[in-house]
Amino acid sequence: MKLIRYGAPGKEQPGVIINDKRYDVSEITKTFDEAFFESEGLARLSEYIKAKDGQLTEVSADERLGCPVARPSKIVCIGLNYADHAKETNAPLPSEPVVFMKSTTAIVGPNDEVMIPKNSVKTDWEVELAVVVGKRLSYATEEEALASIAGYVLHNDVSEREFQLERNGTWDKGKGCDTFAPLGPFLATQDEIADVDNLNLWLKVNGQVMQQGTTANFIFKVPFLLSYVSQFMTLLPGDIISTGTPAGVGLGFKPPIYLNPGDVMELGIDGLGEQRQTVKAYEPHR
Amino acid sequence: MKLIRYGAPGKEQPGVIINDKRYDVSEITKTFDEAFFESEGLARLSEYIKAKDGQLTEVSADERLGCPVARPSKIVCIGLNYADHAKETNAPLPSEPVVFMKSTTAIVGPNDEVMIPKNSVKTDWEVELAVVVGKRLSYATEEEALASIAGYVLHNDVSEREFQLERNGTWDKGKGCDTFAPLGPFLATQDEIADVDNLNLWLKVNGQVMQQGTTANFIFKVPFLLSYVSQFMTLLPGDIISTGTPAGVGLGFKPPIYLNPGDVMELGIDGLGEQRQTVKAYEPHR
Repeated sequence: MKLIRYGAPGKEQPGVIINDKRYDVSEITKTFDEAFFESEGLARLSEYIKAKDGQLTEVSADERLGCPVARPSKIVCIGLNYADHAKETNAPLPSEPVVFMKSTTAIVGPNDEVMIPKNSVKTDWEVELAVVVGKRLSYATEEEALASIAGYVLHNDVSEREFQLERNGTWDKGKGCDTFAPLGPFLATQDEIADVDNLNLWLKVNGQVMQQGTTANFIFKVPFLLSYVSQFMTLLPGDIISTGTPAGVGLGFKPPIYLNPGDVMELGIDGLGEQRQTVKAYEPHR
Repeated sequence: MKLIRYGAPGKEQPGVIINDKRYDVSEITKTFDEAFFESEGLARLSEYIKAKDGQLTEVSADERLGCPVARPSKIVCIGLNYADHAKETNAPLPSEPVVFMKSTTAIVGPNDEVMIPKNSVKTDWEVELAVVVGKRLSYATEEEALASIAGYVLHNDVSEREFQLERNGTWDKGKGCDTFAPLGPFLATQDEIADVDNLNLWLKVNGQVMQQGTTANFIFKVPFLLSYVSQFMTLLPGDIISTGTPAGVGLGFKPPIYLNPGDVMELGIDGLGEQRQTVKAYEPHR
């Protein structure tokens, strides 16, 4: 299944994509959140779709999409999980995963605008495969971790490099700014992805290819990452684990290239759809 | 006002403390969470208590207390905010605040057991003054930040030093383990605290005083910290900002001293009550 949340920001309704068409499923659940995944929501949704037998209400393709998961308890990110990216940022290959957190207030829809923070001069892009946890995980084995996955979603782990690396703190300062976590267009359940370790991922800025990688180059694979993070903190249903980015981020160029207002980012992963964001200058919250 | 949440874990009811007695206020709100603070809940609660004119239902002093805030969107912590603590950990004085995040799954009540994580040998204590945000804050001035505060709460920022400092990541790995955020016993609204910059705070292990400090020694004061964090991420009502710990943590002793099963931590801050936690060995989640 492919799960979406469509509608105005903060008022998204749950839906699914079937044969490239969007359908509403708000009859079976209010949203896709922790309570949904925790209560075997994916199984109920699957049965509901079968029972409806083609009689679902179609949703306009013009509707805005939000993040397919409503308000996860946390976003945990993995740093430097592709050897080529570690090299371009002059970081040594990690002996174990680098872990940091991203404020959930950074979440936006896949095609919403990305805002350059006030006083930022180094806003950068990162195409990533994100995993949505389906069950509570604590000290999980790799087998338990794999069995717990609700699905996968495309993520642009937008990052402010000065805030992240030069402002006397952990990376978290440069990762959780508003609009820095476009997620979507849909959550693909595990059965939709034949081999998560063999997906191409790419990102363009203003039409020019900047990142082109494959999850075949993961240093640490998905079941290991979930098992690993669960040794340090409990993961809840709906939590998002983002698995790192391949080479080609702005920081890696000599000299570095950063985003400016008006720039357009387009990105995608095999089987997980595409995103498109226009970059805008800082503006106060409405 | 002093706000509490009492009852079994996950089933806490809202209450208040008046003249050292506990009273139920579940008639006016289901809980103290983002929606409560966002909707002028503190003002409504104050009016409700006045209207009841001493006719509130008393709650037994034997009831367990939970964290006075239900499921904040995030816990943001400030590192090295007391000069004496920076010195004992061999860290330079920060030129601007060190910021890191703590998984909200770490939250427990003020007197719940603290669990040493599996494979941990360096579990440590940190008494801290935590601030509960009352209004959405983004790029806030210090004046706006001060006006937005819902209240203050005592926090033991329990930390695993090996996970935090020696495991190839940001500090987040050693801060968000289950039970690592005892919060409470109550949220004191701003009017309860005459001078937040002049509060004694202390922590004992097995009856021995380990930390004894005062918020007069803050490197960065509360309004500055909230304003500062809000430059990097939006703070939501109910979010918790913990302001750092004074000297006397286990890591600072030569040789360091860490927690063992059976140890008892007691801690307190002027006007914010006391906590008491027994340390237990790792045990799987029930």
